[in-house]
Amino acid sequence: MNKDDASWILSNTFLILTMQTGFGMLETGSVSHKNVANIMIKNCVDVTLGGLAFWIAGYAFAFGDPSRLFDGHTGFFFTPPGDAHTGTHYTHYIFQFSFASTATTIVSGAVAERMKLKGYMLFSIFNTIIYSFSAGWAWCATGFLARLGFFDFAGGIVVHTCGGASALAATIVLGPRSDRFRKDRTPDGLNSPTTALTGIFMLWWAFLGMNCGSTYGITDHRWIVAAKVSVITLNGSMGGGITGLVLSLIFKQGRIDITYVMVSIMSGIVSITAGCPILSPREAIVVGAIGASIALVAMHLLKRMQIDDPVGAIPVHLFGSLWSATAVGLFGDDEFGYLGNIHGLMHKGGWHQLVVQWIGFTSIALWNALFTVVAFLILKKFRLLRMSANEERLGADWVEHNVCSATFGVKLDKALKDIN
Amino acid sequence: MNKDDASWILSNTFLILTMQTGFGMLETGSVSHKNVANIMIKNCVDVTLGGLAFWIAGYAFAFGDPSRLFDGHTGFFFTPPGDAHTGTHYTHYIFQFSFASTATTIVSGAVAERMKLKGYMLFSIFNTIIYSFSAGWAWCATGFLARLGFFDFAGGIVVHTCGGASALAATIVLGPRSDRFRKDRTPDGLNSPTTALTGIFMLWWAFLGMNCGSTYGITDHRWIVAAKVSVITLNGSMGGGITGLVLSLIFKQGRIDITYVMVSIMSGIVSITAGCPILSPREAIVVGAIGASIALVAMHLLKRMQIDDPVGAIPVHLFGSLWSATAVGLFGDDEFGYLGNIHGLMHKGGWHQLVVQWIGFTSIALWNALFTVVAFLILKKFRLLRMSANEERLGADWVEHNVCSATFGVKLDKALKDIN
Amino acid sequence: MNKDDASWILSNTFLILTMQTGFGMLETGSVSHKNVANIMIKNCVDVTLGGLAFWIAGYAFAFGDPSRLFDGHTGFFFTPPGDAHTGTHYTHYIFQFSFASTATTIVSGAVAERMKLKGYMLFSIFNTIIYSFSAGWAWCATGFLARLGFFDFAGGIVVHTCGGASALAATIVLGPRSDRFRKDRTPDGLNSPTTALTGIFMLWWAFLGMNCGSTYGITDHRWIVAAKVSVITLNGSMGGGITGLVLSLIFKQGRIDITYVMVSIMSGIVSITAGCPILSPREAIVVGAIGASIALVAMHLLKRMQIDDPVGAIPVHLFGSLWSATAVGLFGDDEFGYLGNIHGLMHKGGWHQLVVQWIGFTSIALWNALFTVVAFLILKKFRLLRMSANEERLGADWVEHNVCSATFGVKLDKALKDIN
Repeated sequence: MNKDDASWILSNTFLILTMQTGFGMLETGSVSHKNVANIMIKNCVDVTLGGLAFWIAGYAFAFGDPSRLFDGHTGFFFTPPGDAHTGTHYTHYIFQFSFASTATTIVSGAVAERMKLKGYMLFSIFNTIIYSFSAGWAWCATGFLARLGFFDFAGGIVVHTCGGASALAATIVLGPRSDRFRKDRTPDGLNSPTTALTGIFMLWWAFLGMNCGSTYGITDHRWIVAAKVSVITLNGSMGGGITGLVLSLIFKQGRIDITYVMVSIMSGIVSITAGCPILSPREAIVVGAIGASIALVAMHLLKRMQIDDPVGAIPVHLFGSLWSATAVGLFGDDEFGYLGNIHGLMHKGGWHQLVVQWIGFTSIALWNALFTVVAFLILKKFRLLRMSANEERLGADWVEHNVCSATFGVKLDKALKDIN
Repeated sequence: MNKDDASWILSNTFLILTMQTGFGMLETGSVSHKNVANIMIKNCVDVTLGGLAFWIAGYAFAFGDPSRLFDGHTGFFFTPPGDAHTGTHYTHYIFQFSFASTATTIVSGAVAERMKLKGYMLFSIFNTIIYSFSAGWAWCATGFLARLGFFDFAGGIVVHTCGGASALAATIVLGPRSDRFRKDRTPDGLNSPTTALTGIFMLWWAFLGMNCGSTYGITDHRWIVAAKVSVITLNGSMGGGITGLVLSLIFKQGRIDITYVMVSIMSGIVSITAGCPILSPREAIVVGAIGASIALVAMHLLKRMQIDDPVGAIPVHLFGSLWSATAVGLFGDDEFGYLGNIHGLMHKGGWHQLVVQWIGFTSIALWNALFTVVAFLILKKFRLLRMSANEERLGADWVEHNVCSATFGVKLDKALKDIN
Repeated sequence: MNKDDASWILSNTFLILTMQTGFGMLETGSVSHKNVANIMIKNCVDVTLGGLAFWIAGYAFAFGDPSRLFDGHTGFFFTPPGDAHTGTHYTHYIFQFSFASTATTIVSGAVAERMKLKGYMLFSIFNTIIYSFSAGWAWCATGFLARLGFFDFAGGIVVHTCGGASALAATIVLGPRSDRFRKDRTPDGLNSPTTALTGIFMLWWAFLGMNCGSTYGITDHRWIVAAKVSVITLNGSMGGGITGLVLSLIFKQGRIDITYVMVSIMSGIVSITAGCPILSPREAIVVGAIGASIALVAMHLLKRMQIDDPVGAIPVHLFGSLWSATAVGLFGDDEFGYLGNIHGLMHKGGWHQLVVQWIGFTSIALWNALFTVVAFLILKKFRLLRMSANEERLGADWVEHNVCSATFGVKLDKALKDIN
C-alpha cells in the first residue's frame, strides 16, 4: 500500500461512516414519535460499545493470526508496532471498522420500539464479535469462504446478511410490538417521512463510498474498477427505485407508497453490492429491479406472518443479500481479469460460483442468526430483553431517557405508577 | 486520465450527489406541512427516472458521436467496451451524471404543492434528455457553444440556466398555488426554517465539490486551479450572504428575513460558478454581492407578477446564471493561461467574450424553456399536470402518498368525497 | 506541496466545513422551539461575516509577515500573486479558513436564546480576528508558542480553547436566560433530541477530516500518520461515549441521559485532538474517557454556579481542550520521529512539554476570553447585547425573523405591544 491507496481508502472510509447518520435518520423517521430519541441512542451505542468490541477482539478474530491473538499486532486491543507496515495496518483496521459498524447498526431498526436499551447495549458488543468471525471467513486470506472462491466485493453478503439474519432472529425471539397486529389498530405509519427519506438520500451516497472504496486502493487497475463500480451502484439503485415506483402504482391504487420507494432503492443497491465490479450497467438495472421486487414481496410475507420489522431491515438486508449472492453466481463476469476470474452461470461459468455464493450466504446467515437467538434468550432470562407493555405504551424516549416528561409537565415515575 | 485524476473526480462526484440531500431538505423545509413527503419523493424520482433517461439516451445525446448512437460506446444504454479507455469513460459518465441530476432536480421546487406526481415522473425523464443536449453544446468538443469559445467552468450556466429556465416556464404554464395570491391569505411561510437552512448548509459544501471537481482532475496545474476555486466559491457565498443580511436589515424593518439569507447565499455561489477559476478573490465578493442583489430584486418582481415559485428556484438559478454568464464576460481573466485564454471586458478582453456568454445563456434558456412548455402542455392535455383544487387543499402527501390519513384516522377516499 | 498533498488537504477541508451543518443541527435541536431558526442564522453569519473578516484581515494577522500586511500576498484581502506558489497559498488559506470558521461557530451555542442578532453579527467579525492571532502563535513558524515547542496537531487547543473560552466569557457577561434558574421552572429540555443527535453524528465524521487532514498532506510519512489519527479519533470518541453511558446509568437512576451521551462523545474527541498522532490506541480510549468525565463534572459545576450554557459548549470545548493540552504533556510519544520529537511525562519526556502545553492553553484562553469580555461590554454599552425580557419570552425566531407570527396568525408588533 502507498499514499495514493491510503488516501482513497481513508476518504471512502469517512464516507462509509456517514452511513451511521443515514441509518439514524431513516430509523428515527420510521418509528413512532415516542421512540425517536431512543433509536438514535442505539445507533450511538453501536459505534461506541460495538466499536470497542471490534477494537478489543473483533478485528483480532477476523484478521488476526489465531495462534498470536495474545501477542501479535493483529491481536486483541489492536495496536500495530511502529514498523514499516504501521500505515497499512491502521488503514486496514479503520476500513474494516466502518464495515463492522454498518453491519451491527442494521439490527437496531428491527428491534425498535420494544427492546430494552440495556439489553441492546450488551447485544451490540456481542453482535460485533459474531459479525467479525464471518468477516474473517470471507475477507481474510485464510478464511474458509475466501479459500472456496466466495466473492463479496463490498459486503453485500458479509455485511447485509449478517445484519439481516440477526434482525430476523432478533424480531422473532422478541415478538412484535404489542399493538402491531391488532385488527382495530390505527396504522401510525412513519412519524416523519421527510427525516426517513433524508436518511435514504444519505445512505445512497454513502454506499458509493462503501462500494467504490472496496477496490481497497486506487493504484494500478483499481481506479478503473472504482469508476465502473460507481456507475453500477447508481444503476442498481435506479433499477430498484423504478421498480418500487411501478409496483406501488399497480398495487397501491395509483399512489406512491413511501415505504415502497425506500425499500426498493435500498434493496436495489444491496442487490449489486456483492458483485458490483463484475456486473455490466445493463445487468445492474435488472439485478436492482429483481432485488426490489423480492424485497417488496418479502415485506408483505413478513407482515402476513406477523413478523414485526419496523424499518424494513429484513427485506432489504436479508433478502437483498440473498439475491446479491445469487446475482454474482448468475451474472458475474470478470471482464478485467483482476477480480479472481469469476464467471457466473450466464457467462459460461457453470453452477460452481452460484453454489459457492449460496454456501457463503447460508453459513453467514446461520452463524449470525444462531448466535443472535442464543444472545436474546440469555437476555430474556435476565429480564434485559423486552420493555413491559406499559413502558412500550409510554415509549422508550420517556422510559429510558426521561425526555417527554418535561414536555407534558409530569414526572415519569408518577406516570408509570398511574398506569400500573 | 490516470489514477490521481480519477480519484479526485470520483470523490468530488460523490460530494456533488449530496446536493440531492441538500435540495431535498431545502425544498421540504420550504413548502407547507401537507407536502413535505411529496417533494422528497420528487427528488427520488429525479435520480431514478431522470438517471435512467440519462443512462439510456441523455449521455449519448450530450457526448456521443451522432453517427454512432446505436453502436458506439458513447451511444444509448451507456456501456463502454473493456478496452484501455474504460476507466476514462466510466469516470466521465458518472461525473456528468451528477451534473444532470442536479439540473433536473431544480424544477421540483418550483412546481411544488400543485403538480401531479405522475406528470412530474414523466417530465423528469423528458427534462433530463433536454438538458443533455445543452450540456453537449457547451462541454462536448464538437458542441456549437464550445466551438464559439463559450466558458462555463462548473455548470453556472449549463446546469443552472437549464434548471432555472425550466422552472420559470413550468410555473407559468402550471399557474400559482390556488390561494397563493389571494389577499386575505395568511402567509404560511416555511414549514421548517431549520430543515431548509440545513439544506442550504449541505448545498454550500456540495458546491465546493461541484466547482473544485470541475477541474476534471488534479494532475499538472489542476490542483492549483482547484485550490483557487475553493476560495472563490466561499468568497462568492460570503459576498452573497452578506448582501442578503444587509438588504434584509434595510428592507425588512431591521429584521433578518430567512428567505433573504437563503436566496442570497445560493445566488452568490451560482454567480461565480461559471467563472470561478478566472475571477480573483476580490471580484468573487463583488460578483456574489451583485448576484444576490439581482436575485432578491427578481424575487420581488416575480411575486408582483404573481409568478409562484415556492422555493425561490427562479431568482437563484435563472437570474443567478444570467449574472454568472455576464460575470465571465466582464471580469474573467485567465491568469494561469490554462483555461482557454479568456479575458473579459474589464481585463482588456473587449466585448467578445460577453457576447459569447450571452449567446450561450440565451440558447440554453430558450431551448429548455421551450421544451418545458411543450411538455407541460402535453401533460395538461392528458390531465396529468395539475392537482384539483380539493387535492391541493388536502395536500399531496395525503393525496399521492396516503400519508396523513393515518394520522387523522380517516380514509383518504372518504375525505375526498366529503369535500366534493 | 504537490497535487497529492493538495488533493488530501482540499478533500478534508470540505469535510471540515460540514462541521457547520453539524453544529447547526446540534444547536438547533438543543434550544427551545422559539429559537430554532435564529441559531441557524447565527451559524450562517459565522461563515459569511466571520469568513469575510478572516479574508480581509484574520489570515494576515495569523500567517502574514507583520511588516508586509499592506502589500504582501499574505497581507490583508488575501490574494496570492499568480506565481509558482499560488496553489500552495490557496490551499493553506482554505484549510485555515475551515479551522477559523469552526472556532467562531462554537460561541453561537453558548449565547443562544438571549443575545441580539445584530450584536452577534458584529461579534462574529471581531471574534474571527481575535482567534486568528492565537492561530498564528501556534501554527505560524514565527509564532511564540510554535517557537516554544507547543504541540497542537488538529486544533484541540487553538480551535477549542478559543471557542470555549469565548463561550465562557460571553455567557458570564450576558447572564443566564431569564427563567433558566428559577426554581419553579418546568425544564424544557432539548426541543428535538433527534436533530441534536443527528448533528452529533455529522460532527463525529467531520472530526475525522479535521484530525486526519491536519497531516497537511499525504506524501512521505503523512499517510501513515493520517491512518493512525483516524483510529485514535474513533477510539477517543469511544472512550468518551462509553464513559457517558456508564456515568448516566450510575447518576441518572439507570437511564441514559441524552445530553450526557452528546457531551461525552464530543469531549472524548476534543480530548485527543491536540495529540492524536502521538497517542496510542489504548491511550486514546483512556484520554477520551477522562475527558468525558471532566466535561460532565464541569457541566454540573457550571449549572450549580448558575452559568447558563444552553448546548454544553463550555464543558466540551474549554474543559475538553484543557485536558487535550494536558494529555499531550502526559501521554505524547512521537513514535515516528516526524512530529517534533515530543515526549510527555509518561514517556520519559519530563515536565517540559506539559508546562509548554499549559502555557499555550492559558495564553489562548486568556487572550480570547479577555477580548470577548471587552467586545461584549462595548456591545452592552450600545444596547446591542441582550434581548429584552419580553423578546426573550417571545423567542428570537419571532422577534428577529418574523417567523412564528405567520403560524399564530398575529402580527409581531401587536404581540409585542400586548405584552408591554
